[in-house]
Amino acid sequence: MSQFETITLDVKDGIATITLNRPDRMNAFTLQMMEELIAAFDQTDADDAVRVVIVTGAGKAFCAGADLSGGADTFDYEEQKGNAPDPLANGVNRDGGGMVSLRIFRSLKPVIGAINGAAVGVGATMSLAMDIRLASEKARYGFVFARRGIVPEAASSWFISRAVGLSTALRWCMTGKLINADELEKRGLVESVHAPEELYPAAVAIAREIADNTAPVSVAMTRQMLWRMAGASHPMEAHQLDSRAIQARGASADAKEGVASFLEKRPAEYPDKVSTDMPEFFDWQGEPEFK
Amino acid sequence: MSQFETITLDVKDGIATITLNRPDRMNAFTLQMMEELIAAFDQTDADDAVRVVIVTGAGKAFCAGADLSGGADTFDYEEQKGNAPDPLANGVNRDGGGMVSLRIFRSLKPVIGAINGAAVGVGATMSLAMDIRLASEKARYGFVFARRGIVPEAASSWFISRAVGLSTALRWCMTGKLINADELEKRGLVESVHAPEELYPAAVAIAREIADNTAPVSVAMTRQMLWRMAGASHPMEAHQLDSRAIQARGASADAKEGVASFLEKRPAEYPDKVSTDMPEFFDWQGEPEFK
Amino acid sequence: MSQFETITLDVKDGIATITLNRPDRMNAFTLQMMEELIAAFDQTDADDAVRVVIVTGAGKAFCAGADLSGGADTFDYEEQKGNAPDPLANGVNRDGGGMVSLRIFRSLKPVIGAINGAAVGVGATMSLAMDIRLASEKARYGFVFARRGIVPEAASSWFISRAVGLSTALRWCMTGKLINADELEKRGLVESVHAPEELYPAAVAIAREIADNTAPVSVAMTRQMLWRMAGASHPMEAHQLDSRAIQARGASADAKEGVASFLEKRPAEYPDKVSTDMPEFFDWQGEPEFK
Repeated sequence: MSQFETITLDVKDGIATITLNRPDRMNAFTLQMMEELIAAFDQTDADDAVRVVIVTGAGKAFCAGADLSGGADTFDYEEQKGNAPDPLANGVNRDGGGMVSLRIFRSLKPVIGAINGAAVGVGATMSLAMDIRLASEKARYGFVFARRGIVPEAASSWFISRAVGLSTALRWCMTGKLINADELEKRGLVESVHAPEELYPAAVAIAREIADNTAPVSVAMTRQMLWRMAGASHPMEAHQLDSRAIQARGASADAKEGVASFLEKRPAEYPDKVSTDMPEFFDWQGEPEFK
Repeated sequence: MSQFETITLDVKDGIATITLNRPDRMNAFTLQMMEELIAAFDQTDADDAVRVVIVTGAGKAFCAGADLSGGADTFDYEEQKGNAPDPLANGVNRDGGGMVSLRIFRSLKPVIGAINGAAVGVGATMSLAMDIRLASEKARYGFVFARRGIVPEAASSWFISRAVGLSTALRWCMTGKLINADELEKRGLVESVHAPEELYPAAVAIAREIADNTAPVSVAMTRQMLWRMAGASHPMEAHQLDSRAIQARGASADAKEGVASFLEKRPAEYPDKVSTDMPEFFDWQGEPEFK
Repeated sequence: MSQFETITLDVKDGIATITLNRPDRMNAFTLQMMEELIAAFDQTDADDAVRVVIVTGAGKAFCAGADLSGGADTFDYEEQKGNAPDPLANGVNRDGGGMVSLRIFRSLKPVIGAINGAAVGVGATMSLAMDIRLASEKARYGFVFARRGIVPEAASSWFISRAVGLSTALRWCMTGKLINADELEKRGLVESVHAPEELYPAAVAIAREIADNTAPVSVAMTRQMLWRMAGASHPMEAHQLDSRAIQARGASADAKEGVASFLEKRPAEYPDKVSTDMPEFFDWQGEPEFK
């Protein structure tokens, strides 16, 4: 079903699996991969058959970072026009990793990172916008930017202190050191660590918990509410949003089915769909303009 | 001393204990309980004899969530007028759980949750605005909203990522799964886990640490400063606030007694009162308008 | 090389060590110490020979807090003119600890706290603006303000919930209790705990990881990006900032050297300097006006 070249997208039993698929290049990130990832999340959001998205890598790596085959000029957009996203915004080349992170941020489906190996540079930072990360024992993270003369990108300066504490974030980004799976778990960047062959099944198990038990519209709204309110200044913002959300969803067919199925002790069959039934009082996928 | 029906409020030796008290209904939340909780916190704030508030549940549960005895229409405010807070704000039924959370947020006294059993739905979310949570071994949390066709309420989308990491918050709210006491402690939602009969005494021990050693006005200001600045964009906001706070309290009778008692190695007797001596340069209980 | 009286500043092999140096007074904080600390960070920022700053205390204590030798009037600025920062801002005596914290916040070099003993009052709060904290087994923290009739200062109401969870922050500040090294590590305030004689070497080891492997301009930008974006409301703010940062640094001599040295598997020699090569699209050391 996939029209992509640098990734694959497979949907089965409610779970979409996006696989970074340049195993001979350790799934190094390119402009094409950026575009395909964004397109893939557009598809998973639009497809009501998709309840959860799992992102993983083909072969030994998750994603080894930017493809450095361009050599020393890799990050010089003037020299490497082909590697720069287009169009310019206010004369600035929008960072490609950031366009992926912001797209994942806007996802209406939960996103689980199954980090199977090296996650370095943009491979590390793009995973921060995923909701849940699981790691193989062989996983290694590296926020190596300061060791390449550049800086953390993919909007990671916002995401990372929401994923781990600010001290850990500074430690990892200012040293650029490699972080093994045990430390990833200890500092909370991944929920759990698994033998390589048990990683993907563990991600599927969480996906099934969601897909088999919850209302799709509820999950889409919940995801956006938690991510948006993580940056809000006062809980009144959340109260304004969830008062409307409870009023809208409380009167929905989903809520009636949710309560009735609970009282009748039977599985629920939620009628509402993300494609058509997201309430209109909030711009669920909107984002501020790039300035 | 309590005029309430769905809760009790007892004050002894500086500690107010609010007990959710519908044990035959697992302390399920109702509109009346919402009103009584808000009134109880109005009382604890106004009463200088109260230094700390402990919130717990009667019987086996802490609070099993919204009372579902209304059946499938429970969350449909058009159908269940009696279950909706009043008055409307901008045509929106303000969420009842959120009015409780925001009231706890504004509390001038520390609030300790002694989570004795199931804390589900609004039972889970209202506890997030408390400062410290302790759990019985029998405690179970469930952010079950997505399993009922609704969404997390009580402003929890703001509170939860301040109480646990955002990944944990998303994991719990998007699966709706039950969380046992060990996981609550591991993920930091509760400070410690206790045998059932040792839970309330553990909460009292913390309350005594506060009541026996600290200045009431200092604690009230500290509580508001930390909660408010958790959402502030830049530390300059805190510097502006605490410069004024140190100037005001540094010249107070409390500060003179605090330093003198320390130098003299004797217990302090703080003269100032929350009811009359909160400095006026900040609106300690103010909140943004509901829009 | 140090012209200071209450602290010392030594620079060796890229590492500046600032030592609070009033050991007979447990390094108690004074107005002079405030001024000297701010001046010391001005020097470390301006000196390209400094890659990392370590802050520690001489003798048994890190910093025992404000010098209480003024007695009960210590915090009364009207009575203790000499202890108040100058000039007034909007009629407010700016808090001295906060001026230190905000100066550390603006540091262009990483700051490691080597907490060798008691860190009490402003000794505790000023350390929150440091990036990484390591503790001696003998370290003790005390956010004792509520036990002195005052409130947490040094902008700590903003910093502390970024360093530990909000519940832990409230627990520590509302009880004012002393916190031992094990609890500091368990709650994440310090990265690790060391035997007293191994503390400073452990701090140096982290400093070397940074100094020996990373580009100075990258580290300075990374530090400011992570601290600033910790308080940002939406990841778009980070995307706007890092898009410009990648565009500017991607074309730099540092980036070309960083990629080339990596591909050639040799140590990098970064040519750019913090004193002259910070990009101009962001005010790296700017801060909001005190209002």
